[in-house]
Amino acid sequence: MANYQKLNVTGAERVELHDRIGLTGSEISVNVLPAGASVPFVHAHKQNEEVYIVLEGKGKMVLDGEEVELMANDYLRVSPPVKRQIFAAPDSAIKYVCIQTKSGSLENYTATDGIM
Amino acid sequence: MANYQKLNVTGAERVELHDRIGLTGSEISVNVLPAGASVPFVHAHKQNEEVYIVLEGKGKMVLDGEEVELMANDYLRVSPPVKRQIFAAPDSAIKYVCIQTKSGSLENYTATDGIM
Repeated sequence: MANYQKLNVTGAERVELHDRIGLTGSEISVNVLPAGASVPFVHAHKQNEEVYIVLEGKGKMVLDGEEVELMANDYLRVSPPVKRQIFAAPDSAIKYVCIQTKSGSLENYTATDGIM
Repeated sequence: MANYQKLNVTGAERVELHDRIGLTGSEISVNVLPAGASVPFVHAHKQNEEVYIVLEGKGKMVLDGEEVELMANDYLRVSPPVKRQIFAAPDSAIKYVCIQTKSGSLENYTATDGIM
């Protein structure tokens, strides 16, 4: 596998990056929901932690029945068993990145994993 | 630990999210380099894959001596041993997210990890 791989992602279609850029520690998707739309189902995960990054717009997540407002520049971690559903606002689309990683998998990072 | 945790990140200071939102499968940092600036060192990693997401602006990465241009909406995977350094363009700041995960740690994802 290439030592690095890059993709430019624009447009309104969902893009899943795992196979496109050769990810091995995460799956990353880029998503746009039009105003008033939602992902049409509630889901949870077996072992993956998710992080949602809101790039543009606004909306909300329902997490185990609790509503959490979302706006641009929000970074939201969700533990695997939480039942979740994301909605665009009635008057605004929402563009977001969703990162899946295996919960508990990170061992070292930054100063303890980096080599100068 | 809370089942979910959220932080809004704006401004020009580097923000490391691991401890701020309770990450266990990744470290995620949000970074801004002013026009003409760079991270002042080359680094590699012992075991972590990195993904860089360019949120705004432009710049370049030097990866094992090769230059790769960066612009908004780029998603770039870098394998652990690659020697890397990121630069803002001479005439533009660059704002980016860096995601560290343990290389090879993802087992299942999306349809094979999700529960409807």
